[in-house]
Order: sequence, then structure tokens, then C-alpha cells
Amino acid sequence: MPNPLVAFTAGIVRVLLLSFLGKFMDYGQESLKKHKATHGKVAIVSKFGPIMNREDLSVAYTPGVAAVSSYLGEHPEEVQNYTIKGNTVAVISDGSAVLGLGNIGPYGALPVMEGKCILFKQFADIDAYPIVLKTQDTEEIIQAIVAISPTFGGINLEDIAAPKCFEIEKRLREALDIPIFHDDQHATAVVVLAALINALKIKKISKENVRIVVNGAGAAGLATTRLLIEYGIKNIIVCDSKGILHKGRADVNSEKQSILAQTNIENLEGDLPTALNGADIFIGLSAANVLKPEWIKFMNTEPVIFAMANPVPEIMPDIAKAAGAYIVGTGRSDFPNQINNVLVFPGMFRGLLDKRITKVTDKIKLRAAEALASCVPDNLLSPENIIPSVLDKAVAMKVSASVG
Amino acid sequence: MPNPLVAFTAGIVRVLLLSFLGKFMDYGQESLKKHKATHGKVAIVSKFGPIMNREDLSVAYTPGVAAVSSYLGEHPEEVQNYTIKGNTVAVISDGSAVLGLGNIGPYGALPVMEGKCILFKQFADIDAYPIVLKTQDTEEIIQAIVAISPTFGGINLEDIAAPKCFEIEKRLREALDIPIFHDDQHATAVVVLAALINALKIKKISKENVRIVVNGAGAAGLATTRLLIEYGIKNIIVCDSKGILHKGRADVNSEKQSILAQTNIENLEGDLPTALNGADIFIGLSAANVLKPEWIKFMNTEPVIFAMANPVPEIMPDIAKAAGAYIVGTGRSDFPNQINNVLVFPGMFRGLLDKRITKVTDKIKLRAAEALASCVPDNLLSPENIIPSVLDKAVAMKVSASVG
Repeated sequence: MPNPLVAFTAGIVRVLLLSFLGKFMDYGQESLKKHKATHGKVAIVSKFGPIMNREDLSVAYTPGVAAVSSYLGEHPEEVQNYTIKGNTVAVISDGSAVLGLGNIGPYGALPVMEGKCILFKQFADIDAYPIVLKTQDTEEIIQAIVAISPTFGGINLEDIAAPKCFEIEKRLREALDIPIFHDDQHATAVVVLAALINALKIKKISKENVRIVVNGAGAAGLATTRLLIEYGIKNIIVCDSKGILHKGRADVNSEKQSILAQTNIENLEGDLPTALNGADIFIGLSAANVLKPEWIKFMNTEPVIFAMANPVPEIMPDIAKAAGAYIVGTGRSDFPNQINNVLVFPGMFRGLLDKRITKVTDKIKLRAAEALASCVPDNLLSPENIIPSVLDKAVAMKVSASVG
Repeated sequence: MPNPLVAFTAGIVRVLLLSFLGKFMDYGQESLKKHKATHGKVAIVSKFGPIMNREDLSVAYTPGVAAVSSYLGEHPEEVQNYTIKGNTVAVISDGSAVLGLGNIGPYGALPVMEGKCILFKQFADIDAYPIVLKTQDTEEIIQAIVAISPTFGGINLEDIAAPKCFEIEKRLREALDIPIFHDDQHATAVVVLAALINALKIKKISKENVRIVVNGAGAAGLATTRLLIEYGIKNIIVCDSKGILHKGRADVNSEKQSILAQTNIENLEGDLPTALNGADIFIGLSAANVLKPEWIKFMNTEPVIFAMANPVPEIMPDIAKAAGAYIVGTGRSDFPNQINNVLVFPGMFRGLLDKRITKVTDKIKLRAAEALASCVPDNLLSPENIIPSVLDKAVAMKVSASVG
């Protein structure tokens, strides 16, 4: 005989999930319709205006343009001033890890990359361009991006699977003199840290004393953990799909190994519920519905839950609240506390481009997180308001100003 | 003692050259000023309009876009309908042969590529994007272009030096299922053939009987010669900087060898003036001022001169006319008969994209040349009007309609 309480809870979960799913399907249908009507989202315009006569043509194109070309041939350091390079970012994916959809290839990635580009434009007036790749080979990806780099003032890597994304970013940083920014890692890390800074304020816990569980050891999970450590968090336990990362695990890649040395100070072993024991904060960068509501009671009272899996989070906010969570954030636009990296990448690149910064350092990321957290003034902080709205136009400017 | 007539002619030439040079410098100065003011010419806009609320964001980006991504992951054949691919062309250069300026590198090439992109937009409503490359190695160029190809509906190669441009185009045609078009070769060939068709009408010479000298055996010279042969011209002599291509020449590359088999039927040897002996038409795709006015008298009476070197032609039109030429065309906007490839590439790609054509065949090029020639109706044909204006908006539509 099934336990009636379990059956009742399962019923509620099912109803809630179906309602969310219905909403997704509406957005999805609307999105399909709109993409088909416009054939995608990104178009080109001329900053010179229409060519009305031969003089216009002679200035925009030959023979006049020859003077600009000659000049830049001799003065490459002036390229940002005379071409699009100074305000241009490539948004590049190989389609190997698109949203939560997995390896769906370059065509599947293209609508997401186009979406990023129009957000870059709207929030930071950056002319970003989507490039999706026919290869998923690390060396070929690196070579192609190096080859096309002269057009761009920055490279925003996107939806590239771990662990190759680490190698690709590292090698590109070494090879190129423009900023390389793997959005899934670093924008996520910055926006999560910003939300965390404000959650700690509300909870009145110090960064030295807070106990955090990060669930997910992919690109976003590892980058976020690293930035939290840089910020000064001392007690973090990282879990992957097989449980807690501990020194006895033989099945972890070198990226996870390196994070292991700085986390799990008690060398705890076991599964996610074990890790949650006595934790103040759960940060999920993993998969749909992996946090069971009954596990929340293992955590300290009134814990903080950031359930960032996209589009279906690790736990639905209402369920987390009902199970005792005090502050809940997700990546989604239909709940309070939308911890979404669109709060980061436009302003980050605006600052990088404007100040001609060639490397994104930890310091830049920490300052961006603090700037982003400060967008919600202390007197407006509440469990439902720890992070500014993704539509807040002031955010990109503040993040941009913090860079450099 | 100098011959007074030679001194007088040299004086006139000098004055004319200085006046042209002044005009270039004006356009050049204006172009430098304008490029600096706008930081280049190409910008991005959203076809979805501004994101005003969370619903807009959910449709353009997550979660709604996930439906489009999933769909394209499963239905790659629909990519042109739901993304920018169907209306997008990459304008790609390695900067190895930029205009007449030579190997000035990717930054020097970028203003020219941006210029092409805004012409694509204005004349054919195509969203073209400039990509300049950090490599000039044939294999690396091919690999990079293949890698970035999924974003694009077509590849317009530009200002890549001969002979590597032939290999790159050939290999990309084999590797990719989108049209590859080396503008310097094929758009030039098409526009020259269009001008030639109308010049032959005026001169009342048949294509079987006309005698043509092509000076220049680079990308444009060889491609133009090939298309003229396809059109049915029987008697062509090709010269390079060392004189007539003939069977005794040991110093010619394989591309020139292959053209040799179909040209110079009398196996003439010697220099350009020798080649001009009895020719009806001179087509220059070579360098500034290489056609001496006194050589025009070696040609048949009232010859046709297409002096296409850019920006300074093989001979200035007024000088050619004074020396006996009947019809003169150049690539320039400040003389009649501007034989410029902007008359070709926008309409060509419009047709290729609209009809999803994956290979540009000789037949497509011949039809485009005929369509372009027909833009000047017979009753309006004159020695000063053999080709439509580069600003004529009907041209791209007619060329586009001819494709397929």
C-alpha cells in the first residue's frame, strides 16, 4: 500500500510540473513561430547609412576605403578605432552542451547564440555575432577561433562541454590578445557569487563560517566553486552525479582533482544528502529535480537554495519553500531571484572592450560580482529580492564600471 | 634634347594623374574620418525588436528558445527557416591581396570586407558578415572556413592571393554544401563578360571572330579568360607581367598552364605590344599604367579598352580615347562604364540563397552576365553606356532572377 502522504506529495509535484511544462511549451511554441516568421534574430545594418550616390560609394568602399586599409596595414594598433573590432564579440559554440539539451550540434546551438547576441546589443550596445562550429574537436576548435579572431574584440565561448571547455579557454587565453570568456563558467560563477553575497547579508552568516554544497562538477559547478574560494568561502563540498568529491575517489578528472584540494576539508564521503547535513546553502548547477524536498531538513534551518538547472531546476521553488528553504533562486524568469548570467556577460564585455582589457582575471570577476550584488541596495534586500531584475538597464553599466 | 611631343604628353599625363590622385586623397581622407567617427561600418540589430518584459525574454531566449534548438537538433534541414543561416553570407579574407595594395594583412582587409557587407545589405538585403583571418596558410584557411560554416548560407571569398585562392575555393566547394564564390575571380569575370557582350553589340563583332588580349594572369585574369572561353570566344591571348603566355614558357604555374591550352591559338611569343597587334579588345586585370597609349595604334581601329586595375587603371580613359579607343571601361566610379563587381555579388548571392543552390556553375555565371548585359536595353547602348550604373537598384534583382 502506498503511503498516502507520499502519494499526495507526488500528486502535487506532478500538477506543478505539468503546469510549468505547459508554460514552457507555450513559450516554446511562441518561440518556434516567431523564429520561423523572422528567420532568426540577428540582422546587419550599415553604420554609414544608405549609399545614395557615387561619392558615398567612394567613401564607404573603393577608392576611399583603400586609405583606411593602407593605414591599418601600417598601424594595426589603430584597428579598434577604424573598424568594427572595438565593439564586436564572437559568440561561439560547437553545440556540444546546449542549455540542458546536451550535444545537439551547431544548428541546435545557433538560436541560443543568436539570442545571446541580441542581449549583448540590448543591454550593452555590443555588436555580437553568432558562430557555430562544424567540429567538436578541441584542437580544431582552437585553431578555428584563433584563425577568425582578427575581426573580434572578444570571444564569448558558449555551451561547450566540460572538460574540453577548460582546455579550449586556457589555450585561447594564451594564444590571443583579446579577452576570452567562457560564459557558462564565468558569468554563472559571477552571478551566483553576487546572489550569495546578498543571501549571506540577509542570513547574517560570514563567508568564513558558511557551509556550502555545490551540486554539479561540470563547467559551471567548478568555475563557481573556484570563484567562491577566491572570494574567501572556506567550507565547500562539491558533489557530482556519483556523490561527494573526496580524496578516495579514483574516478575524477584533473579539473575535479584540482578543486578537491581546496574543498571538502573534512574529507566527507557519501551521497548528496550526506553532504547537505548541516549545510547553509545548496547551489545546484546540475540537472532537473535532483534535490529531493525531504533532504532539505538535513540542512541548517531556513537554508538558501540556488537551483540553477535550466530550464527545469534541481527543485521547484514552491516545493523548496514548503520544505523549509528561506531564500530560493533559479535561472528562470517566472520566479523571484532570477540568477541568470544575462546579468553578467553584457556589462562584463562592455567593460573589457572599453578598457581594452585582454585577460579576464579572478579580480575582475570578484569585482563584477560585488558590483552586481550592490545593484540591490541593503534596504531593499529580502528573501524574494537578492538579485536585480534581468531587465534592469542599470546593471550592465554598473558591472561594466567595475571592470578594470 | 627631349622630343617636345613626348615632353608635352608626359606633362599632360602628370597633370591628369595628380588630379586623380587628389581626388583619391580626398575620398581617402573623408573615408578615414568617417570610419574613425563610426568605428567601422557593420552593426547588429535584433529582428525580434527590443525585449520589453520577461515574456519577450522567454521567447527570444530561455526557456522558449530551447524548443527551437531541440527542433533543429532533430531537423537540421530546417535550419534556414529558423535561424539567420538562410540569409547570411560570410565575407572572408586573409588580407593577402587587398585591392591593389597587396599583402597588408587582416586588419588592412577588414574595412574592405565591411564595405562588401554593407553593399550586400543595400543591394540584396543579405546579412553578410566580415571575417578576416589570422592565417595565410592554405590548409589552415580551409579548415577554419569549414569549421565556421554552419552559421552561413554562403561563403564569399575576397582578396586572397593567387594561386592559393584557386585551391582554397576548389577544396571548399568539395567540402561544403553551401555556395562558395571567390568574388575577385567570378564576380569580375561576370561583370567583364557583361560589358563585353554589350561592347560586341556596339562594335558588331561576333564572339567567334573577336580577338581579345587579357593582360593579367592572376585570379581575376584567369577566371575572366575561362568564362570568356565558356561564352564562346575563340581567340584570346593572355599576358602576364613577363609577356604572352605561350607553349615555350617554362615559368608558368599549373593554373596558367591549363589556360594556355585553350588560348593563344597561333602560339604567339613576345610582349604585350606584340599581343595587341590586330586585337579588337584589351582587358586589363593587372596593374596601374601598364598600357602605353602608343600601343593602342597596334590594335584594330577603334578598339575597346577595359582597364580594370584598381584604383589606378592600366590606362586613364581620356588618354585611351585620345589614342584612338572607341569604348573604354574601368572599375572606377568617376568615369563612364564602371565595370565593377558590385554589379554581380549581391544579386548572385540573393539568387543562390533564395533557391538554395549549393554550387556556382559556369552556366550560372554565363546567365548572370547575360542578365547584367541586358540591364542596358539595346536602344540605350552607346560607347559611354555599356553597363548599368552600380547604383541601379534593378540590377541585383535581374541578376538574382537569372540564377538557377
